[in-house]
Amino acid sequence: MPLAEFDLIREFFSHSAADRDDVVLGVGDDCALLQPPVGMELAVTSDTLVEGVHFAVDADPEALGHKSLAVNLSDLAAMGAEPAWVSLALTLPSSNYDWLQAFSRGFISLAKEHGVALIGGDTTSGPLSISVTAHGFVRPGTALRRSGANVGDQIYITGTLGDAALALLARQGSYTIESGVAQLEQRLDRPQPRLAVGLALGQIATAAIDISDGLLSDLGHICASSGVGARVLLERIPTSAQVRSYLQQGGEWGTVVAAGDDYELCLTIPPGRGSLLRDIKADLDCDLVQVGEVVSGSGVTCIDSEGRTVSDLGLGYQHFR
Amino acid sequence: MPLAEFDLIREFFSHSAADRDDVVLGVGDDCALLQPPVGMELAVTSDTLVEGVHFAVDADPEALGHKSLAVNLSDLAAMGAEPAWVSLALTLPSSNYDWLQAFSRGFISLAKEHGVALIGGDTTSGPLSISVTAHGFVRPGTALRRSGANVGDQIYITGTLGDAALALLARQGSYTIESGVAQLEQRLDRPQPRLAVGLALGQIATAAIDISDGLLSDLGHICASSGVGARVLLERIPTSAQVRSYLQQGGEWGTVVAAGDDYELCLTIPPGRGSLLRDIKADLDCDLVQVGEVVSGSGVTCIDSEGRTVSDLGLGYQHFR
Repeated sequence: MPLAEFDLIREFFSHSAADRDDVVLGVGDDCALLQPPVGMELAVTSDTLVEGVHFAVDADPEALGHKSLAVNLSDLAAMGAEPAWVSLALTLPSSNYDWLQAFSRGFISLAKEHGVALIGGDTTSGPLSISVTAHGFVRPGTALRRSGANVGDQIYITGTLGDAALALLARQGSYTIESGVAQLEQRLDRPQPRLAVGLALGQIATAAIDISDGLLSDLGHICASSGVGARVLLERIPTSAQVRSYLQQGGEWGTVVAAGDDYELCLTIPPGRGSLLRDIKADLDCDLVQVGEVVSGSGVTCIDSEGRTVSDLGLGYQHFR
Repeated sequence: MPLAEFDLIREFFSHSAADRDDVVLGVGDDCALLQPPVGMELAVTSDTLVEGVHFAVDADPEALGHKSLAVNLSDLAAMGAEPAWVSLALTLPSSNYDWLQAFSRGFISLAKEHGVALIGGDTTSGPLSISVTAHGFVRPGTALRRSGANVGDQIYITGTLGDAALALLARQGSYTIESGVAQLEQRLDRPQPRLAVGLALGQIATAAIDISDGLLSDLGHICASSGVGARVLLERIPTSAQVRSYLQQGGEWGTVVAAGDDYELCLTIPPGRGSLLRDIKADLDCDLVQVGEVVSGSGVTCIDSEGRTVSDLGLGYQHFR
């Protein structure tokens, strides 16, 4: 069912994902008009997903709608920001009505869950690609930057790592998951941005990043920005039963720490804030586990169960390699 | 010269296009952090340019850098907003150093000209596509919406129309421009966003839009949003000498009013504000010409020099047709 561009925009973009009083004018004019809250900083992030690079050609459009928003909300979470507004630039090879309906269902459902308003966007024809820009609010001075880690801070991770990578291996046919396939596929297709964690730890953590390219690569960014090193104990890294089974069968640790697509948070927290942290942890909807500590020097060092340094774990996903 | 993604971002994105005090944290973290001015509304717009759709495969990268920002600033102009921050999501088939250097030169040069800071972005591999999100400020209640036109308002256009379309016809080999080719190509490749006009007319115009898809289509949006019709006198439409020569040789009016890529502004202004308008016009860096008036009814009607209604002028560029 071919539709003209303006009809497309009207039909799929013009119902705002959440009603917010701070949206003065939403989709449908040259710009959206927004009223930022007084005394707050605005956090802005953009992430693009490209067919054949970030997702397969036959990817489920509803999951894609979810994920294209989730990866952006994950960046807001890593900054300790409260999400507010999002715009969506969609490039499509053709106007497939069913595809668009499923895509917008996934996108808008996650937006509503987090009170995010869809404020505008653009629809163009071309190779399938989804570029999202998300806006959130953060109290001045409380944003979780990559550059705040200090020697002696403890390194924490939310949730579990490696699930998305293992689900991808299984989908590609190079590994067979014995049970809980659907659960792991959810982790790959519908990551949950850790917004509550980011907000709760804004006053406690010294640095944070979301794990999109793998723990080694992303923790490496904290190290580089903060001028420190990191020691990670592989055995402490939280994993699902499926990932533990994969490792027991001789699977590679690189799948857990270097393959990415986890969208968990990695945070550094001074050891003196342990009691504050315990109080907060009780209220979180996910686990928060210490996996290592910030040390002097540079780069991320991984230690195995026998105390040996492990290298050759990969460097995380990089485009253009 | 292949570069890893992070190096790419660092090299081309990390020198902010303009230093602004309201950028708390620029490129290089999970989000940018910004300080919106108290008492102003935030105007946000996104526009994507796709290779083979919006520009040719061999397009000059420096011009492309300019144009990908210009089309977004043009949306801010049409809202009467003052530009401030921009983020850039770039999808590239490979990391061509020379291409990137030329692209960023064009982008950053225009950003500096308008005091715009590059606050972040994303670089991914994939088919060439450029998605920009621009942010500006506007005093509450003064934004130029599409919906404010009233019957009796006069319709004005900045600059001249049809130059970009004629340059494209010439580049495609279907028309020969006798003189001033370079000037017309500038109009196609390096449109100048009419920011000063938008800002100056915020208190005077009742509605505005930028002409990206052709006057008929874009003025049609004002009519639809405002619940009015429009009468346009074709002879009044400002054109360059080259476009006049093209029309005299039997060229189609559709090239002038329906082909788009002009990035001029179309505004509606009540006739009683004529003296205010005269004062402002003297200070503008471009012409502002009355081409018609807002009437009751719906849709845009074009009238030729003999008073006859002209139809079949085309509907402007639409993707997915």
